[in-house]
Amino acid sequence: MRIMIINPNSSPGMTQAIQSAAENYAAGEFGVSCRCNPEAPVFIDTYEDAAVTAPGMIRLVRENEAAYDAFVVACHCDPNLDVLKEVSRKPVVGIGEASMRMAAMLGHRFSVISTGGHSVPNKQALVRKYHLEGLLASVRTPPPDSADAGEEERYLAAARAALDEDGAEVIVLGCAGLAGLDKRLQAELGAPVLDGVVCALIIASGLVRAGLSISKVRRYNPEA
Amino acid sequence: MRIMIINPNSSPGMTQAIQSAAENYAAGEFGVSCRCNPEAPVFIDTYEDAAVTAPGMIRLVRENEAAYDAFVVACHCDPNLDVLKEVSRKPVVGIGEASMRMAAMLGHRFSVISTGGHSVPNKQALVRKYHLEGLLASVRTPPPDSADAGEEERYLAAARAALDEDGAEVIVLGCAGLAGLDKRLQAELGAPVLDGVVCALIIASGLVRAGLSISKVRRYNPEA
Amino acid sequence: MRIMIINPNSSPGMTQAIQSAAENYAAGEFGVSCRCNPEAPVFIDTYEDAAVTAPGMIRLVRENEAAYDAFVVACHCDPNLDVLKEVSRKPVVGIGEASMRMAAMLGHRFSVISTGGHSVPNKQALVRKYHLEGLLASVRTPPPDSADAGEEERYLAAARAALDEDGAEVIVLGCAGLAGLDKRLQAELGAPVLDGVVCALIIASGLVRAGLSISKVRRYNPEA
Amino acid sequence: MRIMIINPNSSPGMTQAIQSAAENYAAGEFGVSCRCNPEAPVFIDTYEDAAVTAPGMIRLVRENEAAYDAFVVACHCDPNLDVLKEVSRKPVVGIGEASMRMAAMLGHRFSVISTGGHSVPNKQALVRKYHLEGLLASVRTPPPDSADAGEEERYLAAARAALDEDGAEVIVLGCAGLAGLDKRLQAELGAPVLDGVVCALIIASGLVRAGLSISKVRRYNPEA
Amino acid sequence: MRIMIINPNSSPGMTQAIQSAAENYAAGEFGVSCRCNPEAPVFIDTYEDAAVTAPGMIRLVRENEAAYDAFVVACHCDPNLDVLKEVSRKPVVGIGEASMRMAAMLGHRFSVISTGGHSVPNKQALVRKYHLEGLLASVRTPPPDSADAGEEERYLAAARAALDEDGAEVIVLGCAGLAGLDKRLQAELGAPVLDGVVCALIIASGLVRAGLSISKVRRYNPEA
Amino acid sequence: MRIMIINPNSSPGMTQAIQSAAENYAAGEFGVSCRCNPEAPVFIDTYEDAAVTAPGMIRLVRENEAAYDAFVVACHCDPNLDVLKEVSRKPVVGIGEASMRMAAMLGHRFSVISTGGHSVPNKQALVRKYHLEGLLASVRTPPPDSADAGEEERYLAAARAALDEDGAEVIVLGCAGLAGLDKRLQAELGAPVLDGVVCALIIASGLVRAGLSISKVRRYNPEA
Repeated sequence: MRIMIINPNSSPGMTQAIQSAAENYAAGEFGVSCRCNPEAPVFIDTYEDAAVTAPGMIRLVRENEAAYDAFVVACHCDPNLDVLKEVSRKPVVGIGEASMRMAAMLGHRFSVISTGGHSVPNKQALVRKYHLEGLLASVRTPPPDSADAGEEERYLAAARAALDEDGAEVIVLGCAGLAGLDKRLQAELGAPVLDGVVCALIIASGLVRAGLSISKVRRYNPEA
Repeated sequence: MRIMIINPNSSPGMTQAIQSAAENYAAGEFGVSCRCNPEAPVFIDTYEDAAVTAPGMIRLVRENEAAYDAFVVACHCDPNLDVLKEVSRKPVVGIGEASMRMAAMLGHRFSVISTGGHSVPNKQALVRKYHLEGLLASVRTPPPDSADAGEEERYLAAARAALDEDGAEVIVLGCAGLAGLDKRLQAELGAPVLDGVVCALIIASGLVRAGLSISKVRRYNPEA
Repeated sequence: MRIMIINPNSSPGMTQAIQSAAENYAAGEFGVSCRCNPEAPVFIDTYEDAAVTAPGMIRLVRENEAAYDAFVVACHCDPNLDVLKEVSRKPVVGIGEASMRMAAMLGHRFSVISTGGHSVPNKQALVRKYHLEGLLASVRTPPPDSADAGEEERYLAAARAALDEDGAEVIVLGCAGLAGLDKRLQAELGAPVLDGVVCALIIASGLVRAGLSISKVRRYNPEA
Repeated sequence: MRIMIINPNSSPGMTQAIQSAAENYAAGEFGVSCRCNPEAPVFIDTYEDAAVTAPGMIRLVRENEAAYDAFVVACHCDPNLDVLKEVSRKPVVGIGEASMRMAAMLGHRFSVISTGGHSVPNKQALVRKYHLEGLLASVRTPPPDSADAGEEERYLAAARAALDEDGAEVIVLGCAGLAGLDKRLQAELGAPVLDGVVCALIIASGLVRAGLSISKVRRYNPEA
Repeated sequence: MRIMIINPNSSPGMTQAIQSAAENYAAGEFGVSCRCNPEAPVFIDTYEDAAVTAPGMIRLVRENEAAYDAFVVACHCDPNLDVLKEVSRKPVVGIGEASMRMAAMLGHRFSVISTGGHSVPNKQALVRKYHLEGLLASVRTPPPDSADAGEEERYLAAARAALDEDGAEVIVLGCAGLAGLDKRLQAELGAPVLDGVVCALIIASGLVRAGLSISKVRRYNPEA
Repeated sequence: MRIMIINPNSSPGMTQAIQSAAENYAAGEFGVSCRCNPEAPVFIDTYEDAAVTAPGMIRLVRENEAAYDAFVVACHCDPNLDVLKEVSRKPVVGIGEASMRMAAMLGHRFSVISTGGHSVPNKQALVRKYHLEGLLASVRTPPPDSADAGEEERYLAAARAALDEDGAEVIVLGCAGLAGLDKRLQAELGAPVLDGVVCALIIASGLVRAGLSISKVRRYNPEA
């Protein structure tokens, strides 16, 4: 089994970090290959970033449709996920959708810790798209007065506040760039911390094994 | 006041029809200019169509930001509406959003009559995005056995079924290509029939007059 | 085109303020005439106030049905709006409904700033009636410790708190008596501030131009 | 204990039928007195009917506040219920609200059988007001081809369709004028059939015994 | 009329307190008999506690089905309520469901004051089951720094915070063990405070008088 | 990795069918052991069945907590799932929850095909518990006139009706006893058909590999 992970942005560093996290989960039982989108911005942050990365993402899927068994979109805002579910006949899984639906199985409510600014309303809109708003405790970003602290410490503060003040019981990392932080935060918090890349690989590899894929009955069937 | 109407597709015929409907509403009190997107498909039907039309739509807004007072997206699935709300500092109005929010003010529930196939689930997803599902009676498409009938007759049958069987009280035309049909259907049905282009012009011209625009506080602020 | 604005209360001062705001928006392109309800209380505050103003409001519509093209109810709790939608065959628009539905098009979530006390739960109930609770950030009233400050300063504090603490991106003035405050608050806040009278005139004048009115299919048809 | 039942309309016949049903339930353990509103229409059907009956209903409560322990509004559309909850310091119970909330305790979903025409959307709006839409199977009216049948037969057909086709498990009589039909329909259907007058008396008499009343914290406190 | 109140736990003290509260409400007009479940834990706190008390609760109903007219489940988490609604042909009422549905009739939103820890998410899940989340202001527990205070003072602090900070207008006691506290808290707060045992007796005795019971159409019919 | 699958009922045949389906999915990469509950009924159908199977299910988890890495509850109504999530510190996955959350990732809406009678409302209640009602197209049972047809044909008819009439795009098998039918129905329908046992194994094995488990922050922590 071979799963292609599409990093919608053009950052080699983030691509490498995702590849490492994916290999770590796959543990040699299936192949994972993370590919970035050379024409895209270095970071997918705005709605415009998400829009301009679409052609490169579609091309990656079209060119690799035959060679791979499933595709993962490795940006937590799931950019162009509907497009790729429509374009491919193979399973396509977004790390945002997979991580938040799995979080719902592990505790009462989950919080997403995210990078800041417009990511809060944008994530809330994504949560609504997936009918998950009743299960969302909060979207939290690192506290503004923590700018001098290290990344781990800053997101730890956001996650702790979600658990203590918002009623969250599960933490979802809201950015593919946080890959690798899950185990460290989980150890500190004593609560499940979900990395989207891992969650999407769980779903994608399982779908492949089970012979399941995206329905082509109507919504994701371009011919319907 | 000058309002640019962006037809996301590349069809000159549909562009002309939208221009006519818009001029008819504007009645000389403000300027309307409908522009198509030459790089886009002839019809925006799939999620892929919507994605590939984004660069051309963004360019139209950027190049005309100074010269126009507001922008209307003239495809009823509101493709890339979030992107343009983010890109522009002028009011940006989608014909899907404007027509469905206005329909909510005119009767108990509304139905959208749409072209068929995957447009039904896609429109339902759009309705959910706008928090309007409790006000939606149904998305209806022309009955399959009406393929030989004329366009007006086929959509009339869909609208009538929505009023009689689904509890709809207001009809929304679910495609910019149906522009002009609203008055004829309304006369036949005795119920309000909303054309999205007209509705979007009501909102856009009103926002300009009132000095209002898209909030740049967070969600639609690329710098936030 | 002539639009009658019904001020449900009997305050000449508020009637005059609404008339000014309306003329300012109409700018001579259509006629506006704000009329108060001489039999009503000076201020519509309670459910009883709303109830006792009904007969006078109905009479105003009945007596002016022929002479006007549309009616606006100029109290942000939309008293007797369902009644007037039923009574008239012309467009009837409430400033509460119009302003909150338009706010939904301009940003992620909106807050209503209101006068205080029971207006908070009452406004929340109105928001639910319109299926807008998922788009409401909060209903805010001036902070209690600001009683000595001027009106503008007090509502500015409420609006600022909504933007900073509640996730609001758009502000809706929750009382017709605040007409005129919108531009000043908007300049201070850098976020859209909606005055209900202006919003209702946008919708009402647009409906008239477009030949649209309240559906008489069932809910608002007294004969159905 | 004395409970006043306010029939918002002016029909002596309906007032007498309600009085009988109420006495039958009270069985001498508490006093019930059904009073009609002489200034109101003979039947409360439209939004205007509901509005014009308000002054008389308020007066009935004000004049009898001291002499009665609780008030019941005996019209299933609960006209002016918010007003009376605000006006009185005694328990005020609507037959619509009481019957639908009690129905929720007796089965999976309930259907309301109602008189027809605009009563369907109006009842749906009432159901939403009470946050009960997820528990509503349907609002049903007698089938149009049953006009020649007797009242009992016609509503029986509506109720049976609700049980068989809509997934209802409990039937709510949607009009005070159907008082007395509950037992006969229940015997025929083998499913609970709720008469609103009985349900409101259960709640109202229980509140009186328990020393409970409408909260005056905010929403229903005219001074707040 | 005889109503059996099932205390799912094995605490004689709590059984006696419930019996007293029930007799106080019944005031000799109908019989009440509170029975505990000798095989159950002393307190129903966890999901496991709720599960292991089921066989004893079922046996109590089966053995007393003929002798009693209705059953009340006297634990505010309504353990095994669906089971007993299915098992019995008599009315079965949970104190959680009854108190929260009645609270909805008395004010804008209600808060539940509960014992702490996992009771908050568990109660929120129960509220969702009953479709009441839009009417819930909050679930509150006594503030942690009040451990030295008396029970009344601690719950009073929780209730006051719900009224002042969460927008609650009605307080629901979230544990059968708080029986008797309602009157004292209500006197202090000036807001309705509902004891579940009283509320369930109002509903259960009313159902019996009215000849109503749980629907056996489908959900609660073991033979369907 | 070893996963214990708990068949809540006592049927050796169903236990063997689940074991086969599980081994087929595991394909030797991890161990699966399906155990039935000897004290339980042969089939879990009613709420009482679900309740009485709890002690045996708890015992199976307690006795095998150390020896297994995760537990799957193999009855599509997820009986006692909250209890087991609370009791164990290992991942506990219900086949109902896993299959319905995964269905949400594969198409617009899903339908559950179920055995009949009260299973329809009971499944709807379960769907609500998981906040999935907006994604549910319908719960369908085999048409009553198909009683003479074979099992496959009968469920195929139900699934086909869901796709054609209810807008479903994904089918979920609503009973563990249907294990093995998924591939055959999928081949006939051309739409994804999900078997809960397979879905739960995807989630459970993935959680184990990723070092994730049920949150013990509050809801599922008996000590909290």
